[in-house]
This record gives sequence, structure tokens and C-alpha cells, in this order.
Amino acid sequence: MPVTLRADAPDFESRFRDLLSMKRESSPEVDDVVAAILDDVRKRGDDAVIDHTARFDRMQLAPDTLAISEEEIAVACAAVPPEEARALEIAAERIEAYHARQRPEDVSFQDPHGATLGWRWTAVEAAGLYVPGGLASYPSSLLMNAIPARVAGVERLAVCMPTPGGKANPLTLLAARIAGVDEVWRIGGAQAIGALAYGTDTIRAVDKIAGPGNAYVAAAKRRVFGTVGIDMIAGPSEILVIADATANPEWVAMDLMSQAEHDPSAQSILVTDSAALAQAVIAAVERLLTRLERAEIAAASWRANGAVILVRDMAEAAAVSDRIAPEHLEIVTADPEAVAANIRHAGAIFLGAFTPEAIGDYVGGPNHVLPTARSARFSSGLSVLDFMKRTTIARMTPGALAAIGPAAETLARSESLEAHALSVGLRLAALNEEEASMESGT
Amino acid sequence: MPVTLRADAPDFESRFRDLLSMKRESSPEVDDVVAAILDDVRKRGDDAVIDHTARFDRMQLAPDTLAISEEEIAVACAAVPPEEARALEIAAERIEAYHARQRPEDVSFQDPHGATLGWRWTAVEAAGLYVPGGLASYPSSLLMNAIPARVAGVERLAVCMPTPGGKANPLTLLAARIAGVDEVWRIGGAQAIGALAYGTDTIRAVDKIAGPGNAYVAAAKRRVFGTVGIDMIAGPSEILVIADATANPEWVAMDLMSQAEHDPSAQSILVTDSAALAQAVIAAVERLLTRLERAEIAAASWRANGAVILVRDMAEAAAVSDRIAPEHLEIVTADPEAVAANIRHAGAIFLGAFTPEAIGDYVGGPNHVLPTARSARFSSGLSVLDFMKRTTIARMTPGALAAIGPAAETLARSESLEAHALSVGLRLAALNEEEASMESGT
Repeated sequence: MPVTLRADAPDFESRFRDLLSMKRESSPEVDDVVAAILDDVRKRGDDAVIDHTARFDRMQLAPDTLAISEEEIAVACAAVPPEEARALEIAAERIEAYHARQRPEDVSFQDPHGATLGWRWTAVEAAGLYVPGGLASYPSSLLMNAIPARVAGVERLAVCMPTPGGKANPLTLLAARIAGVDEVWRIGGAQAIGALAYGTDTIRAVDKIAGPGNAYVAAAKRRVFGTVGIDMIAGPSEILVIADATANPEWVAMDLMSQAEHDPSAQSILVTDSAALAQAVIAAVERLLTRLERAEIAAASWRANGAVILVRDMAEAAAVSDRIAPEHLEIVTADPEAVAANIRHAGAIFLGAFTPEAIGDYVGGPNHVLPTARSARFSSGLSVLDFMKRTTIARMTPGALAAIGPAAETLARSESLEAHALSVGLRLAALNEEEASMESGT
Repeated sequence: MPVTLRADAPDFESRFRDLLSMKRESSPEVDDVVAAILDDVRKRGDDAVIDHTARFDRMQLAPDTLAISEEEIAVACAAVPPEEARALEIAAERIEAYHARQRPEDVSFQDPHGATLGWRWTAVEAAGLYVPGGLASYPSSLLMNAIPARVAGVERLAVCMPTPGGKANPLTLLAARIAGVDEVWRIGGAQAIGALAYGTDTIRAVDKIAGPGNAYVAAAKRRVFGTVGIDMIAGPSEILVIADATANPEWVAMDLMSQAEHDPSAQSILVTDSAALAQAVIAAVERLLTRLERAEIAAASWRANGAVILVRDMAEAAAVSDRIAPEHLEIVTADPEAVAANIRHAGAIFLGAFTPEAIGDYVGGPNHVLPTARSARFSSGLSVLDFMKRTTIARMTPGALAAIGPAAETLARSESLEAHALSVGLRLAALNEEEASMESGT
């Protein structure tokens, strides 16, 4: 049974705090191992990548077989069932249409003194995308990472995907082709992150690395941050469903299980003002758990991390949700927009009975790479902006410098930065001389 | 003498690579110390903060003296010379006017199937701003960090500034008041970062921490990243000046020195197509270094990290600059906009003879917190967006779900996520039944 809390109970606050501070993820101590692998890749390049791949993925590669060739990709793509290929194309089109609206605009304006100010956005040149191997090799994740990069204008997209024992997921390769990926490397783990960050003779370094991965990949991303940009360090997935008596308990139960089936560390929370709905959802989950393919994983997640919170009204539901700041928030109530208006912290919101979270995982359009572990309080899902950067621009006129330069000089001197003050002062002196000579007519 | 390179020399590429890979910053091994301090603050709260402050800042505080009081701030502000106060106000007004244009817009649109899609931006609730003590306690930095947060709509702004031996910079306190800071705590180091990230009985936790600091502060920020958001880990400051024969060598030399005077690790680079200008600037620097207040620091920086690069033309100048991806880029040429059009990687660009970089440090308007150490390839200066986050929104209609739901089901099954597929499938089945019952007229 999941935790069940009542917001009107005297011990609610302390039990809710326990829920908030629950540590769902075990973080194995991989940092030393990862540091050694990264160091090796930096020093020995391809040779190190090949050695670590032989060790972890049981594959003997050479520099000229590190890449999955165009021919291999073509063969794999041809083997994808047409229905799956079509579904992937629908997803890609919708993700692209949504993200195309995220392209930011450049700004340029004149201040009252005639100075020109503004900024402009440019794309990162090269991005590396990590795609996990094995069970979690999700073609949908490749689309969600690659399409924003492509929309941003990134010229070179390099994917690393481990292929333990030589097996690559054909649908993931098709996703790479649809998303316009330029290079696919059959390597994974910290050695792949090292190759992308530092470059080798065969694999050129990138500027930004995105994509999910296991503890080794996460530790490696944290370590190379600074040498390259990284997207985020994602934790286990979460869903919070706010529902009232109008909700269909079967549907809500299935939505909760769609998170739970990801991983025993995943978390599914129901927040409702209806005790009857809470009971019905709990009962429906128990029925479902007898017949889902991944029932064991889903049950482990639900029993360890699941929660049902009974609140007095929808205002309280929104407040509880905001304290959790969920990655995914479904609002299945009579007036979902009214509830959403009170929500401040969530990665993604799914409104109404006909928007199951799984739509957002694949074909909705918004990105499914979202902030976990309460980080929606301060961060956002993946977007086009993650593959762009902003350069600020300023151009003073002599008049603008004369107007605001003295304040800069004053502040520079107050901070004991004389050269800063003089860099302004030399120019102001020249302007004053010029003015004086004009006035004296010489 | 700084390094001097000629782009047409046969050894240019290898010497330029050496310049790029130069490690200017020594990173002392403080990580273990910082981990212990953070752990102590998490466990013992105020007591730990007070103990570490006694040890590092030689001040015995109590919970009720951790804050710098309104009265203390008022007394300090009253002591600021009117000219400095006025300069700070001019800076604050201009920074606010610039950043106000960065407020992002919410988006909502309907797709062809009638689904509503979009996103909305909300502010982080509480932000903590770190202001270094001692030499580098810059009032201008407080404005640059606090004003974007305020413009974003952050409700609670808490500043931590160490006051070793009890000394606080009055101008920094005035900057805090002008920027509308809510709390000022007289604590610093890793203990301050710990208090902001975890909260204590006296200091409530924040959601995001910004602001520069020493190696301890940087290591602490890296460690609490995830519990809270952080801005960036900044390295030593840099300037690159692209100049041609039209530039005033004295002014260029002073601009180079205005970076060099920050820190022996700072870096100043001149890129020019004019050998005569290069000679004149080098000579001017030598003259300046005999009379600047901070000549010793500036000389150390120039001799260890300075560089003069002679290129064949402005296209090559832009290419060289992009490979360096400087924090600050001044373009002092006959047609600076034309050169800027070829630039892709820079934190901030200053155009023309009358825009010394120091203007941008104080009163230009754009932020002076900028990406260092080549990270302008993938990251941006501080902005209003750093204190906001985006929530994506989706609402399907029954018709939209019927149109795109089957593709989601297909992809979910291809990823072996049955509950994902069923969460869509249950709804599609209900819609089909409804349609069938309508068609049969029952």
C-alpha cells in the first residue's frame, strides 16, 4: 500500500515533510571510477574508448568501427515495421512544430542617450546526445533531445549509444535518421561522455552534452560540466495527479501506473478532495497490478514511493502539489484550468480527462525531458534555449559616454579599480578637449 | 612580455592551441573541507553556521545577530558619499531598464486537431545571492545579481556577505537596499551556501543561489546543485580586443589593463591586423604599468596570460576570437558592426571606440556576470531567465486524442511500456464506444 495522508490530520505536516525528503535514488559511489575513465579518455583518446567498451559492452572495436555506418543504419531502418515508423514521424513532426515556437528573438534598442543596446542568440555549434542502451534505449528520448538541438540551429549532432553485445535498437536508429543526427557512435558510459567532452582522433569534441544515462553517465556529465555544457542530471520519474470526484478512477490508476512501470524508484502521487475517488483509485491499481506486463516494477514503485493525499479543496490540492513541484502534473477535475491557475511549480501540466501523461511522452509536442526531484522549483524542461546562448551587445555614442561615463568612473574608483575608471576617463578627457577646441574655434 | 603570435606563422596552430588550453586557475583541493562544512550545516543549522563564521571570519555571532539589521543598513547607507549613491542609482536604473526587456512571454496555441499547447513562465520563489567579502566585495555585482531576480518576480531575495572582523562595505549595503533585497546575512563561505541551500532555524532555504565567490564557495555551489539551482561557476575574467589601425593604442592598452588589474589569473588578449598598432599597444601597456595603482596585479596578469595575435584581416580576427569565445569582446575597428556580424561565441560585445568594457561592468545596462573560460560556446550571461522557469502545458480534446493517441500507443508498446499504451488505449476505447452508441442511436 502506498502512503495515505489526510491534509486535515494533526500529523499531516510532519508526514508530508517525510514524503518530501524521501530519498528514492541510491547513488552508488562511482565517482572515482568515472574520474579514472575520463582521465584515461583525455590521455589516450580512441584507445581508451575502445578498451573501456571492450570491458563494459563486450565488444572489440577499432577506430574505424566506432561509428555505426550509414549502411548499418539504413539496414536497421528498413527493418522497422511501417506502423512504428509512421508513429515516429508523427511524433517528430509534432515535437518540431512545438519547439519551433521556442526560437528566441534578438533585441536591439536605443537608450535615451543614443546608445545602442541589445542581445542576440546563436546556436551551439556541436551537441552530443547520449542515448542509454538496453531496456531504457528509448527512440522517443532521442527525438526529444535531438529535435530541439536541430531547431536551435546546431550544425553537428553526435549521438552516443552503447550497443552491449552489438545490439542496437533499430527504432532508435530510425529516430536518429528522422531527427537529422549526423553521427552515431556505438559507445556508452563515462567513456562516451569523455569522448564527447574532450574529443579523440576519431570523435570530435562537442560543446554541449544532453540526454539521460545511468549513474556512471550522470557522474561523468557532472565532471565534464564546464569543459562543455550539460542539460541536467535527471532523477527517477514522477507523476502527481490532482483529481476530483468527476475523474474516472480506472484512468487515473492507469496514469499512476504509467509512471510506476518505469522504475522501482519512480513515484506516483494522487491528490484528491474525494475520499471515494481515492478508494476507487487504490482498488483499481490493485486490480491493474495483477495484469500489467511490468507489474513487478510498478508494484515495487507504488508500494515504496506511491502516495495518496486527501485534501479539503482544490486550493489545498494546488498548494500541496507546489510543495512537491512534480515533474509531471495531471489535473483531472471539473475545471482543470482553474486549478492550473494556482500552480506555480511543475515541469509539465496535462489538463483534463483526455490528456494522459503518456501523450506528452511521445506525441504531444512539448518536451518529455523535465525537471525531477523537486527541481521544477528552479528549472525547466529541455528546450531550444538549451542549445543556444545569448551575447549581449552595447555601443555607446560619444554623447552617451559623456552622460553615463562619470557614474562608471565613480563606481570603479569606489571598488578600487583604477584602470576601469581610467579606461572611461581617457575617452571623456578626449571628448572634453574636442569640445573645448570646437568652442574656441581652433 | 605577453605571448605574441602571428596567424601566418607556420607554428601558429600549435602555439594557439597552447594558448587555448592554458590553465590559468589553480584549483585548491577544498572539496573535502567543503563537504564537511555543508554536512555540518545540514545537521546543526545555525550552530554550525555560527561556529564556522567564528573560525573563518573571527566573529562571534548568535542566531539573532546573523542578520545585518535594518538599522545597521540605514546607518551604513547614510555614510555613503552622495556622488557614489547617485552613481549606484544610475547603474541600477539602467540595469533594470535593460533586464525588463528580458521578461519572456507565455505561449498558447491550438494544433490542427484542436489540442491546446503552450507554456508559461513563473519566477523562482526565493533566491540567495552571494557577495564576496574583502577586496572583491563589489556593489556593482550585487546590483547585477539582484536586479534580474527582482525583475523576474522573485519574492524573497536573501544576500549573504561575509564581514571578516565585522567590516561590511557600506556601498554594498546601499546597493542591497536599492535593489530591494529582503535579507542581508553577515555570513560567507561554504557555511553561507549551506544555510541558503538547506535552511536553518533562522535562515529559510532558497530555491536558487547566484553570485561569485572563492574556491570554497564555488565547490559548495557545485555540491548543492540539484538541491537548489545555481547560476554558474565563474572563472577568472577575460577580455579580447579586436582592433585595427584606426584604434587609439592608449585606450586599447587601458582596456586590456582594466581586465588585468582584477586578478593575476585574468587574461587580456589583443587581436589586430596592424603590426604598428600591436607595437604601440604593447609600448603603451609598459608605460601604464609604471603608474597604475594595481600595477603589480596587472603586470602579473599581462606577463603570464596576456597575448597579442597578429592576423591577416578582420575575417581571421573573428575566427580567432570565436575559437577563444571570450567573456568580453571589444571591437574597435573602422566598421565594428561588420566584424561583430562574423562573431558567434562571446559573452558580451562592446562596439566602437567609445564603449570601453568598464562601461559594461557598471552602467551600460547588460549584465556583467558572463561566461568565462571558453564557456560562451555553450552558455550565456546572467539574465532574468535564470530566475524563472517554464512549465509546459497540454490539453487534448477527445478529437485530438483520437487523432494522435494511436501513434502514442504504438511507440509505448515499441518501448515495452504497456501501462503508457493502456493509459491512452482506455480512453480511446471509451471514445469508440461512445461513438458506436451514438451511431446506433442508443
